Amino acid sequence: MTLQFKNPPAVAAAACVVGKKEKEGPLGAWFEHYVDDTTLGEKTWEKSETALQLGAVDKAAEQAGLSLADIGVFFGGDLQAQCTATAYAVRDFARPFVGLYGACSTMSLSLLSAAACVDAGFAGTAAALTSSHFAAAERQFRFPLVYGSQRCPTAQWTVTGAGCVILNNQPGGVRVSSGTVGRVVDLGVCDINNMGAAMAPAAADTIERHLAATGTLPSDYDIIATGDLGSTGSDILLELLQKRGIELNNHADCGKLIYSLEDDVGAGGSGCGCSASVLCGYFIPKLIKGDYRRMLLCATGALMSVATFQQGESIPGIAHIVELTVQ
Amino acid sequence: MTLQFKNPPAVAAAACVVGKKEKEGPLGAWFEHYVDDTTLGEKTWEKSETALQLGAVDKAAEQAGLSLADIGVFFGGDLQAQCTATAYAVRDFARPFVGLYGACSTMSLSLLSAAACVDAGFAGTAAALTSSHFAAAERQFRFPLVYGSQRCPTAQWTVTGAGCVILNNQPGGVRVSSGTVGRVVDLGVCDINNMGAAMAPAAADTIERHLAATGTLPSDYDIIATGDLGSTGSDILLELLQKRGIELNNHADCGKLIYSLEDDVGAGGSGCGCSASVLCGYFIPKLIKGDYRRMLLCATGALMSVATFQQGESIPGIAHIVELTVQ
Repeated sequence: MTLQFKNPPAVAAAACVVGKKEKEGPLGAWFEHYVDDTTLGEKTWEKSETALQLGAVDKAAEQAGLSLADIGVFFGGDLQAQCTATAYAVRDFARPFVGLYGACSTMSLSLLSAAACVDAGFAGTAAALTSSHFAAAERQFRFPLVYGSQRCPTAQWTVTGAGCVILNNQPGGVRVSSGTVGRVVDLGVCDINNMGAAMAPAAADTIERHLAATGTLPSDYDIIATGDLGSTGSDILLELLQKRGIELNNHADCGKLIYSLEDDVGAGGSGCGCSASVLCGYFIPKLIKGDYRRMLLCATGALMSVATFQQGESIPGIAHIVELTVQ
Repeated sequence: MTLQFKNPPAVAAAACVVGKKEKEGPLGAWFEHYVDDTTLGEKTWEKSETALQLGAVDKAAEQAGLSLADIGVFFGGDLQAQCTATAYAVRDFARPFVGLYGACSTMSLSLLSAAACVDAGFAGTAAALTSSHFAAAERQFRFPLVYGSQRCPTAQWTVTGAGCVILNNQPGGVRVSSGTVGRVVDLGVCDINNMGAAMAPAAADTIERHLAATGTLPSDYDIIATGDLGSTGSDILLELLQKRGIELNNHADCGKLIYSLEDDVGAGGSGCGCSASVLCGYFIPKLIKGDYRRMLLCATGALMSVATFQQGESIPGIAHIVELTVQ
């Protein structure tokens, strides 16, 4: 399903808060808001992630000159079981809330949902919100940090970061002009330490369908960014698209941008907070600056859980696209 | 956020598949599709739940005379960590998928999302899909069944059932005419065995806001149904609304309807599959028969996880409303 908006909603604000490791990475100069102490003063990593989200919402609302009461609806989710990082964040400001689960694709899913809501006139202002936290994700999907487990080279490093984009129906520079809802694609990858490979087929599917539905070519965009395929998944994506006759010469991956690969992060960054931080902290500022005029963000998610992994199931992937343009 | 649809989408089909206990309950005669063997021939309860969803989708598509390829987009989710029951179900038919997490409020959240999508013209046909499975939920939130743990009297019994509603923009009898997106409300209930009490304040909030936004009175509806407050939560809801000057004389609760309270189910039924089964198997058929002409479904969700519970957090609730009318 490709949506082409009649009244493309404007990005009123976009803000992210990242952790220490992300601030010290290649995009560090772009990340205005960060925390040195990734506990954020909380007693549990899960609460630290909620605090990150609250920080991103505060900074975005401040940037837009809005109070939280002005925001008609929040669309958001995260990686914690039952999406609690987000539920406990939005609890703090009694605004309507649509909980989403798209694993690491949540940034583009929530942004597309918020844009559809504003375009259709259901709300004048809507926010998209997501996050991940390295330590909360390790406990959720792998092992608690204190076990000191070794990591595979194809494994990725979950980004500690939260991002919030506020959209409205006012005149504005950067707009969400179209998007494509992804399909679940599963080519049978069962390796929980190789999410990039599990998600790349879904990214290829959504990119191919978006280009076909909009009648555009990759070269029509300044950049086509995936969420967190990392180095392994990015190579697979380019190969899959090439086999379908699509050459992607302007591809970037948020998971490859946010860390140096020498930085002991395996195949790169991952987590909902990966594309959220790179979108809010890097891509949208670059659109505002005029470095890009038209881009696609194709955030990718791996839809397994620890239970399905332990039960020997393969890992289904999904990818949702949003198009951002400068008018 | 209250949505009043300009082109209220029609219910093209609604189907549910329930388990043995639900078939033997007070609504048994209404439940056309059921399974005697709640494993559904699968090796894990999680896969059994996915099979239940696939059954509901098949029956709904058959009823609507549609193939799955005709359905533009699926909105759905479930209670399993990372919403895997739904992700693995929609994997089987490569259709666009928006993953939602609203805990037990998912039936009304997905139906409202699907209706908004069709009303806005983003898709001609959209489906709402959700489920729960007693044994999968016990393992997820309490204890594996084999432990034989005792249950509290205020605890509820997770319904084994899945429901699917297909909406389209064609002429039709039963329509989704409006809805209200809920807010997260948390009055500090920490008892994981008393979800009704945790969710009732959210139901009261959404019902009050929906009535105010639409300028309607409770008496304008034939029935105002909550999802799974059970007997404890229903009493609290009526009291909370009464304090706000709202008398609900036509209230029903899906969790109270689906089981006999003598049936060793504690305070009643719960789970996404509770309101899904009662909506698809009972309310929509009653609307079609003409027994009701206008109703609200206010499904309620408790947004905690095992981790947040163990960390001593209170339980945030949410409730979303959809209005169904016969034209």
